[in-house]
Amino acid sequence: MQRKSSISLSPSSRYAVLGGGSWATAIVKILSYSIESLGWYVRSEDTLKHIEQFGHNPKYLSSINIDTKKVWLTNDINQIIEKSDVLIVAIPSAFLTDTLKEITTSIKDKFIVSAVKGIIPDNNLTIAEYFNQHYEIPFDNIGIVTGPCHAEEVALERLSYLTLACKSRENAQMLADKFECHFIKTTTTTDIYGVEYAAVLKNIYAIASGICHGLGYGDNFQAVLVSNAQRELKRFLDGTYPSKRNVDTSAYLGDLLVTCYSNFSRNRTFGNMIGKGYTVKATMAEMNMVAEGYYATSCIYSINDKYHISMPIADAVYSILYQHANPRPTIKRLVDQLK
Amino acid sequence: MQRKSSISLSPSSRYAVLGGGSWATAIVKILSYSIESLGWYVRSEDTLKHIEQFGHNPKYLSSINIDTKKVWLTNDINQIIEKSDVLIVAIPSAFLTDTLKEITTSIKDKFIVSAVKGIIPDNNLTIAEYFNQHYEIPFDNIGIVTGPCHAEEVALERLSYLTLACKSRENAQMLADKFECHFIKTTTTTDIYGVEYAAVLKNIYAIASGICHGLGYGDNFQAVLVSNAQRELKRFLDGTYPSKRNVDTSAYLGDLLVTCYSNFSRNRTFGNMIGKGYTVKATMAEMNMVAEGYYATSCIYSINDKYHISMPIADAVYSILYQHANPRPTIKRLVDQLK
Repeated sequence: MQRKSSISLSPSSRYAVLGGGSWATAIVKILSYSIESLGWYVRSEDTLKHIEQFGHNPKYLSSINIDTKKVWLTNDINQIIEKSDVLIVAIPSAFLTDTLKEITTSIKDKFIVSAVKGIIPDNNLTIAEYFNQHYEIPFDNIGIVTGPCHAEEVALERLSYLTLACKSRENAQMLADKFECHFIKTTTTTDIYGVEYAAVLKNIYAIASGICHGLGYGDNFQAVLVSNAQRELKRFLDGTYPSKRNVDTSAYLGDLLVTCYSNFSRNRTFGNMIGKGYTVKATMAEMNMVAEGYYATSCIYSINDKYHISMPIADAVYSILYQHANPRPTIKRLVDQLK
Repeated sequence: MQRKSSISLSPSSRYAVLGGGSWATAIVKILSYSIESLGWYVRSEDTLKHIEQFGHNPKYLSSINIDTKKVWLTNDINQIIEKSDVLIVAIPSAFLTDTLKEITTSIKDKFIVSAVKGIIPDNNLTIAEYFNQHYEIPFDNIGIVTGPCHAEEVALERLSYLTLACKSRENAQMLADKFECHFIKTTTTTDIYGVEYAAVLKNIYAIASGICHGLGYGDNFQAVLVSNAQRELKRFLDGTYPSKRNVDTSAYLGDLLVTCYSNFSRNRTFGNMIGKGYTVKATMAEMNMVAEGYYATSCIYSINDKYHISMPIADAVYSILYQHANPRPTIKRLVDQLK
């Protein structure tokens, strides 16, 4: 039955982006090169009006020019659903369920593409799993778009590579064609599970990188930390969902690297403040953006309760963020487990 | 016969470091925590006298304090050979053969540890291969010490991890025990071929990183470049010397990361100047240190002539450094081959 309801994307499928943050804004910019009529759901009426009037998002990546001849906006989620076949979800995971509550129409026949890179707090589901369980979307009709791609560099039109994952290679390629533009190159994979979890895990490791940087560890140690994180990530993916995947490709290792090493990484910045002695509460108050890795840390910890995969780095971050462990001695214990 | 001449290192083996540069100086600092009488061969008499009189190397890492009660110095290479069982070679590959020419005594019964991270220019041999072919040292009596470990961070006593590679696990562990100190952790491996070539290759990729940075490519692209480099490195190692190795460990991936991402990396700095438009000649004149990757680029290119392994990144660096290719269009062609 699930097979029967599989959607084959076509060049004429109607696309919409859901979300008003920086990644959503960046995706709108990317897609408006290849899509003549792109829907954009922005919750805040003020933001929506500003974009319609001035052609840029007042809050995020405001340097990006939005071509309002190609992009139509709404703050009515049911309208955007009705008028679209492919919904690209770029709402931070912490706000996602609240936004989706406003849906009164069925989305069963839609193709969902997650650009969220997070886990829904409280129920420990990835975005794909959440849409599957709560909205009866078959996994065949779910895609993932993943980096390495900081939105800030999209604004600057710096060459970036995106990976599009769908269970069907054809659908992944159809999405890839839409995302390809003069500064975006794309690849495809069928490992929707792997790339989605990799995108979640890398945020935890970026927090770890930041904590260690904040504590004064240097470049030599960061390289050891990240190569250990890469192996930890592989252990988790292979342990929870075995598959033939090469984790040294851009969607896994590349995404891990950009998140752990780039100054644009908010998860690394979050960790850095923790390492420098700020409390979790103070760090959250100080930062204007959500650090997805904060929620991911707790979710992965819960999920791993079942699997008992060796994850010393993720465990250390969990104990610092959620169990009031002192960062310095916690990392000191961690370094003995790395090699 | 080779088996017969295998050396088993013992706690009482006598150690000496050969070389007066920053990595040699860092290794002397590290080893002087565990070795009570450490020989140090420094070619320049001025440098030697300065170290003996003031306790630090005047030219490299001059902040490092040398404990001259434990470290004895000489500029007579035959004397250091005579008085030592284990020779730790930390002389840049471009100067190595000239230095070794001064040897008049046999070194057949010595254990050689290479800390060079380079290939001997002109004859395309790694340090291990060179000692094996030119000095009849069996591979059993050769060790490799490898990072990720920039010497500058050793001077700062920042936590770093070294990998000691020997064909015998026992010898590797014996060396590891000597290198371990309050800011150095060690691991061992028997893959002397793999770690030595990885240390060579990573310098080429660091030059590529630098070139791309110099040309204005951003963090998103760097992450893609480095994850492609990691796969290229694996292809080369597995293609030239198949072995069960996990290239996501510190000696391979970690070393690649620190070299591509750290500001301490002279190979990255070298590439950055090339990317910014300096000629190879001008870059070399400007830099006070040898960029090992310059020689490695030509050597790996020659070696690969036999194997035809797909190495688009190393090939691009070769054509820029040795064939006067313009960096901008060369990298532009490269990016189409990455994913």
